[in-house]
Amino acid sequence: MSQLMQKQTEKRLIKIIAGGPATKLLSKTKDSKSPDRELVRVQDLTPEKADQLIWLRARVHTSRAKGKQCFLVLRQQQFNVQALVAVGDRASKQMVKFAANITKESIVDVEATVRKVEQKIESCSQQDVELHVERIFVISQAEPRLPLQLEDAVRPDGEGRATVNQDTRLDNRVIDLRTTTSQAVFRLQSGVCQLFRDTLTKKGFVEIQTPKIISAASEGGANVFTVSYFKTSAFLAQSPQLYKQMCICADFDKVFCVGPVFRAEDSNTHRHLTEFVGLDIEMAFNYHYHEVIDSITDTMVQIFKGLRDNFQTEIQTVNKQFPSEPFKFLEPTLRLEYTEAVAMLREAGVEMGDEDDLSTPNEKLLGRLVKEKYDTDFYVLDKYPLAVRPFYTMPDPSNPKYSNSYDMFMRGEEILSGAQRVHDAQLLTERAIHHQIDLEKIKAYIDSFRYGAPPHGGGGIGLERVCMLYLGLHNVRQTSMFPRDPKRLTP
Amino acid sequence: MSQLMQKQTEKRLIKIIAGGPATKLLSKTKDSKSPDRELVRVQDLTPEKADQLIWLRARVHTSRAKGKQCFLVLRQQQFNVQALVAVGDRASKQMVKFAANITKESIVDVEATVRKVEQKIESCSQQDVELHVERIFVISQAEPRLPLQLEDAVRPDGEGRATVNQDTRLDNRVIDLRTTTSQAVFRLQSGVCQLFRDTLTKKGFVEIQTPKIISAASEGGANVFTVSYFKTSAFLAQSPQLYKQMCICADFDKVFCVGPVFRAEDSNTHRHLTEFVGLDIEMAFNYHYHEVIDSITDTMVQIFKGLRDNFQTEIQTVNKQFPSEPFKFLEPTLRLEYTEAVAMLREAGVEMGDEDDLSTPNEKLLGRLVKEKYDTDFYVLDKYPLAVRPFYTMPDPSNPKYSNSYDMFMRGEEILSGAQRVHDAQLLTERAIHHQIDLEKIKAYIDSFRYGAPPHGGGGIGLERVCMLYLGLHNVRQTSMFPRDPKRLTP
Repeated sequence: MSQLMQKQTEKRLIKIIAGGPATKLLSKTKDSKSPDRELVRVQDLTPEKADQLIWLRARVHTSRAKGKQCFLVLRQQQFNVQALVAVGDRASKQMVKFAANITKESIVDVEATVRKVEQKIESCSQQDVELHVERIFVISQAEPRLPLQLEDAVRPDGEGRATVNQDTRLDNRVIDLRTTTSQAVFRLQSGVCQLFRDTLTKKGFVEIQTPKIISAASEGGANVFTVSYFKTSAFLAQSPQLYKQMCICADFDKVFCVGPVFRAEDSNTHRHLTEFVGLDIEMAFNYHYHEVIDSITDTMVQIFKGLRDNFQTEIQTVNKQFPSEPFKFLEPTLRLEYTEAVAMLREAGVEMGDEDDLSTPNEKLLGRLVKEKYDTDFYVLDKYPLAVRPFYTMPDPSNPKYSNSYDMFMRGEEILSGAQRVHDAQLLTERAIHHQIDLEKIKAYIDSFRYGAPPHGGGGIGLERVCMLYLGLHNVRQTSMFPRDPKRLTP
Repeated sequence: MSQLMQKQTEKRLIKIIAGGPATKLLSKTKDSKSPDRELVRVQDLTPEKADQLIWLRARVHTSRAKGKQCFLVLRQQQFNVQALVAVGDRASKQMVKFAANITKESIVDVEATVRKVEQKIESCSQQDVELHVERIFVISQAEPRLPLQLEDAVRPDGEGRATVNQDTRLDNRVIDLRTTTSQAVFRLQSGVCQLFRDTLTKKGFVEIQTPKIISAASEGGANVFTVSYFKTSAFLAQSPQLYKQMCICADFDKVFCVGPVFRAEDSNTHRHLTEFVGLDIEMAFNYHYHEVIDSITDTMVQIFKGLRDNFQTEIQTVNKQFPSEPFKFLEPTLRLEYTEAVAMLREAGVEMGDEDDLSTPNEKLLGRLVKEKYDTDFYVLDKYPLAVRPFYTMPDPSNPKYSNSYDMFMRGEEILSGAQRVHDAQLLTERAIHHQIDLEKIKAYIDSFRYGAPPHGGGGIGLERVCMLYLGLHNVRQTSMFPRDPKRLTP
């Protein structure tokens, strides 16, 4: 670096870290004290705080100068409050001008008196008070031209006014994530993970961590990403299933894991991602694989109840922009057999064979038929035809055309696929041969069952799909913070 | 598949799923009831159950025939109980022979009467009772030759008897994970994750999910794995840091994530893995980056306390095989400055410059010196020289040779690296140029700070290292279920 640049850097450094009255505070060493100053949260600005002088750090959401006054809306996540800078005892003309020039989305520290207002401020979350600003400092200045406007980004479609298209949102995700809708979506997503884990931990499940770099593509090598691994190559795991099963064979009895899952599928749809978060369950059972289904459906029900009871604000916030019907579920969860589903579809005019797989449109239609008949947005479809399931799926012993496998659906879309697994090495070998899978490549997997393996089953849930469908959204990219699809790798 | 093979598969299927008296139960459809039979847990077999007839599913841990009797030890995870099959009213000669021939590690269902014993059975966890077996069924048969013996795998080194070397363990992980030591290690690891998340959730942190496939190698491209991504290539994230920071710029305020981290480093040491689990934290702070250090150290302390209070059995179990001193920590956590550490090392005879990085042996030596002086196995080293830290590290405003960055150590080994980050796009640009990083490649990252960014900091913790060092183990492969290193990609 040149001498000149070095100098510029040093000057800048001093300005940023130790520059303004507020930012100077950032430069304190451990021996100096933090300022005798408590920062109040916007959501705590209520009439009880009237006439108090407080400090606040927030973003400038909007700014409107009007003669000798400047009205700001200050925002913290989903909460905002009106602030007034007015020429008078406490503010000079210069200060009003300074405030009016602060760019939107800048972060400021303000000292202000809380005042009750006579007329509710409908446009703010804090409707009963406003702030009369005495001092204002810029902590971090936003560039004047924003790539998108937050008010456009939360506007429902169809009002005939500006909205923001999905690519612009995703290209500028760091701003798009600031909207009330995004804040609500991802706080709810955080809740889904917590409810999933807490429910399973209470049931005696152990959390495991499984490797994502694997030596062999598990299911014949389709749709798998290849990684350069030193002098050889490896693959990204398409699911943690084989590792979950090894844990069952290793006596962990009931396990779960939460982690990324990779699919090199060139699908450009509303519900496919190349990387998503899998909520995975695997458990040994005693007498019947329906014990596994019951554990999974109960976990889902606990998640639905937890969201309903603890995330109403978030649900309402999302609904304002994306209206949808409340999510309905039954207790116990409805379980239909595949043959019943085929019969319902045929009655509705669909032509399909007994052992045909369900197409996506037929899944959706089935979802509507089930909703009409049973009034639920969540159900299990049990006993899939053996032919449409992976090689490790346990055949149905009473009818080998079918299998001990199941999918689960929310609002007519699949969110989980699962099954009782073959736990016998010899049967597994035969099933792999039947599926024309290279035995050499799955040797380690098959060998895991040679030293005593309990009957077991499980399934994998797609986190982004659960959030999308629970909230009644229509694109899985809305519930993935930084989505990955065949055409998107950034940011 | 040939006709013949098809037939063989069908026969096998019937045998496995619907064959024996116990396995027949697996074939029940939803209309049939589960058997009127409760399976008792081994850990619940106490004298209170004396003279009860019970059912149990467990592994055959050991088996010893002796005339008309066969002694089995039946095991469930870390619990085991002695079972006796003896010729008499209830068992025939054939049944004793059948029992004696069941291979070790097979899973069996037994019906048995619980009997109090006069002399404690020292070799079992259930010392006061034994089982008198009336019926026994094999649920899953283990192959007769095990690749390793469980009793060898839990034997402490240095007793002059057989132990199992690490590669044999890892090659046969599904058996090695069944040992009491492995069961304890990974149950404790599950606890670390839970304590980490619960502590942070209580502090108001939000859990986020960050992508692992990224478009650009963040820190200049060293040590990064390349992925084929459709017609282009991508990389595996070396840390979630950039995404955590974007979440802070997107107003999530305090975030954490738990997920895989990938390092294409050809390091074959006791503490390096190419894939490990990162426990990551990032937060906005008000006045001083020590607010971040305090949040992280308090989280670590809550983890240490949680382990100490809730995982004593697991800690004792591991200690039996791998003895170590109990882990010591202080409240509040000890924080040393880098200059103090250099002074301590110099006093101990180490020659090093003020701005030299710490070598691994010097870190260990420092750990010993700190332990002697302060009696703690956990401490923070603050204010690293700027020159040895990444470009996004905030310089110390009072002395630009140093930085607002820190490492944390357990038993003298680094478990966390963290810092206040540069939150100003222009300063960040200058620091990147100083580090000769291609600005084009980090454009999206730098742009994240152009629209208002709060001062913030964080750090990343290596889960496997925390578990290894807390338990006083000596190889990180012991605390990774399926470790990945430059030479190991399986199982």
